[in-house]
Amino acid sequence: MPRFDRHVFVCTNFRAPEAARPSCTANGQSEIHSRMKDAVRAAGLGERVRVNKSGCLDQCEHGPTVVVYPGAIWYGFVKPEDVSEIVAEHLVNGRPVERLRLPEGCLNTPSCPHRPLAPNTPA
Amino acid sequence: MPRFDRHVFVCTNFRAPEAARPSCTANGQSEIHSRMKDAVRAAGLGERVRVNKSGCLDQCEHGPTVVVYPGAIWYGFVKPEDVSEIVAEHLVNGRPVERLRLPEGCLNTPSCPHRPLAPNTPA
Repeated sequence: MPRFDRHVFVCTNFRAPEAARPSCTANGQSEIHSRMKDAVRAAGLGERVRVNKSGCLDQCEHGPTVVVYPGAIWYGFVKPEDVSEIVAEHLVNGRPVERLRLPEGCLNTPSCPHRPLAPNTPA
Repeated sequence: MPRFDRHVFVCTNFRAPEAARPSCTANGQSEIHSRMKDAVRAAGLGERVRVNKSGCLDQCEHGPTVVVYPGAIWYGFVKPEDVSEIVAEHLVNGRPVERLRLPEGCLNTPSCPHRPLAPNTPA
């Protein structure tokens, strides 16, 4: 097998509590990442799907965030208990989990329902 | 702009010098990552191209490694001085830098010219 069939990046970024933007982890450790690695291995996909830690994916107001390539499927507000569904539906069966996807309007935007404009910011 | 036009992951993994596999950085700091972020911003692509740190991309014998999505274009043995060419050619002009690409036969393989089989490993 050459390239990975799917390459999953789980944000493990950590910022101090007083930072302006939130963090995807409380201390750099991600239960989402460790659960997903275990579940991918248990599904027999350990060599074809890579579950990677990543630095800040820059969607901080929607964290914890996960992005899956190919396809650039973005998930937001992921909880550890969502991992088994992502693995079974998306990584095994190829059907992204719609209920967990970040709306397109929330990606790379200075303002969305989860990221209100800061006061005095031009709209 | 919704999704990133390109999403670049630069391995920043660090292992102790006595580890069985090599590391992509000597201390978790990546000059490749910092130079690439600066060059992408200077090229006016700061909002369309995300240059991300990543954990171990599992191509350790070919490091430092970088992967660019979409397309899963893998680069290996990248040096800081290669960054400007990757940015100008691939990220700006859309032409991957062939001389830096990892051969398909080196990806996700237990053995290749850069990763000899360990003694007593079945071929």
